[in-house]
Amino acid sequence: MSRQQRRTLDETLQRAPHPDGPAPIEAMRAGFAALMGSFAVPTDVRREPATLAGRPAVVVEPEGEPAPGTILYFHGGSFSLGSPDTAMPLTAQLVRRTGVRAVSLDYRLAPEHPFPAAIEDGVAAYRALLDDGATPGSIVVAGDSAGGNLAVTTTLAARDAGLPVPAGIVAFSPALDHTRSGASMTTKEGIDPFFRRADMDWMGAVYLGDQDAAQPLAAPAVLADLTGFPPVLLQVGTNELLLDDAVRLADRARDAGVDVVLDVTADVPHVFQAYAGTLDEADEALDRAALFVTQRLRAR
Amino acid sequence: MSRQQRRTLDETLQRAPHPDGPAPIEAMRAGFAALMGSFAVPTDVRREPATLAGRPAVVVEPEGEPAPGTILYFHGGSFSLGSPDTAMPLTAQLVRRTGVRAVSLDYRLAPEHPFPAAIEDGVAAYRALLDDGATPGSIVVAGDSAGGNLAVTTTLAARDAGLPVPAGIVAFSPALDHTRSGASMTTKEGIDPFFRRADMDWMGAVYLGDQDAAQPLAAPAVLADLTGFPPVLLQVGTNELLLDDAVRLADRARDAGVDVVLDVTADVPHVFQAYAGTLDEADEALDRAALFVTQRLRAR
Repeated sequence: MSRQQRRTLDETLQRAPHPDGPAPIEAMRAGFAALMGSFAVPTDVRREPATLAGRPAVVVEPEGEPAPGTILYFHGGSFSLGSPDTAMPLTAQLVRRTGVRAVSLDYRLAPEHPFPAAIEDGVAAYRALLDDGATPGSIVVAGDSAGGNLAVTTTLAARDAGLPVPAGIVAFSPALDHTRSGASMTTKEGIDPFFRRADMDWMGAVYLGDQDAAQPLAAPAVLADLTGFPPVLLQVGTNELLLDDAVRLADRARDAGVDVVLDVTADVPHVFQAYAGTLDEADEALDRAALFVTQRLRAR
Repeated sequence: MSRQQRRTLDETLQRAPHPDGPAPIEAMRAGFAALMGSFAVPTDVRREPATLAGRPAVVVEPEGEPAPGTILYFHGGSFSLGSPDTAMPLTAQLVRRTGVRAVSLDYRLAPEHPFPAAIEDGVAAYRALLDDGATPGSIVVAGDSAGGNLAVTTTLAARDAGLPVPAGIVAFSPALDHTRSGASMTTKEGIDPFFRRADMDWMGAVYLGDQDAAQPLAAPAVLADLTGFPPVLLQVGTNELLLDDAVRLADRARDAGVDVVLDVTADVPHVFQAYAGTLDEADEALDRAALFVTQRLRAR
């Protein structure tokens, strides 16, 4: 039973040790890479290193002839951790379920490169795909956690720079409000098995540096005008501190006349799609995301 | 371009004459049947009259061997109009896209049979399917407009009667609040090309008779406890007076720990899925609904 899978996963995560306060960034990066390395990467995709707009990237392709289009993928890691490799289980699942190739960007990380460096890298990568001949309608931007933020904020910054918007946005458990004003930041404290509010505040400060949280690119769920956005798919779990980030972005999208699917799974942790193969909800959510990507790329 | 399809459809509907005030119920029923009869029914399904819990019904089957499971379908028509035939385009689309048979119930209508007669018929039909050997996990309840309400309220009443809940709920543009307290009841007045607030108030009074609107079965979006509900898919358009009925049911579902997909399409009318074949968003929404049904029936 799937409810049993959710409960078992939550209990396992709740028992995992939480570090007491911030660690040196290199130790956190190593720990995050080890954690994410524990998830299996599907073997039926090909991976090739690449360069996109001067940044390293990984091109992920399905077996056989890829379907038309490109998924521009942004990994998670609180804007300070992670790489295309750490998100490879998720990226590869999207590729094999859609048949569409992905380009996963190794954007610059904080604290060495604070806000908005990662968004600048995202826009540069998107622009490079367009300059390379891709139509905006052939590109879906996607990401998990901080990468879900970058899928949204890259689109926002690209639109504001006068670029045409991509065909769609997929965000898994996106962090969309550095003002941390969502009700779930309080109501899910102690329930969220991954995050504590204090840790998120600390990581947010690392990302923002001396920049103000109260601006659209740092808090799109509460401050961004989403007019002209392409269709958005938001997937999130009810146990997350970040639940209301997705809920409020969906509210703003509807108010701006944007197609938006707010896809909420109960009692699952942050970026639960990583548990594909062991949690039925993960596989089902990925299949819904794959259909969304396919529909967006077929529409243009 | 699909945005052009949406605009053209909206302009066409906005130009259609709206009756000045209520007409005799038989004239409204004939007009509704004529309107819904203008939508094509897919020809690749079989339809057979049937009886379910003493009420007429129509069994709709795909070509070839049906996939396991049953969709218990409730047609729309403000609880006073319509029949399985008027919703047949929608029911048949779900059947052919899922491969699962549907049973569409001809529940009792107001004013002859006011609230909660239709819900009683829904529960009796669901119970009859169970008594006939179906497992609850093999049944998805679905409906459009008032029928979306019945998909939700049948589940609510069944749960409260001690029955196990079905595998999932699909509601297209459901009416879920007879207190009419949603913000969209005001903000979408003049934008909704189908409904006017005054007409909805009148039809609501016809349905409720002398019953109070402020009770869970009449206003589930604001008063129902959804604990224990199966996964819910809500599809709605941003131009609808009923938009916030779906939004607020999704809010309550999340709060109750229920899986819920709130799937919103911009600038489309009430039950836009009926425009399959001429509006791309209709076909895409139906494919998302079909995947949801398939996942729910596969899960148990």
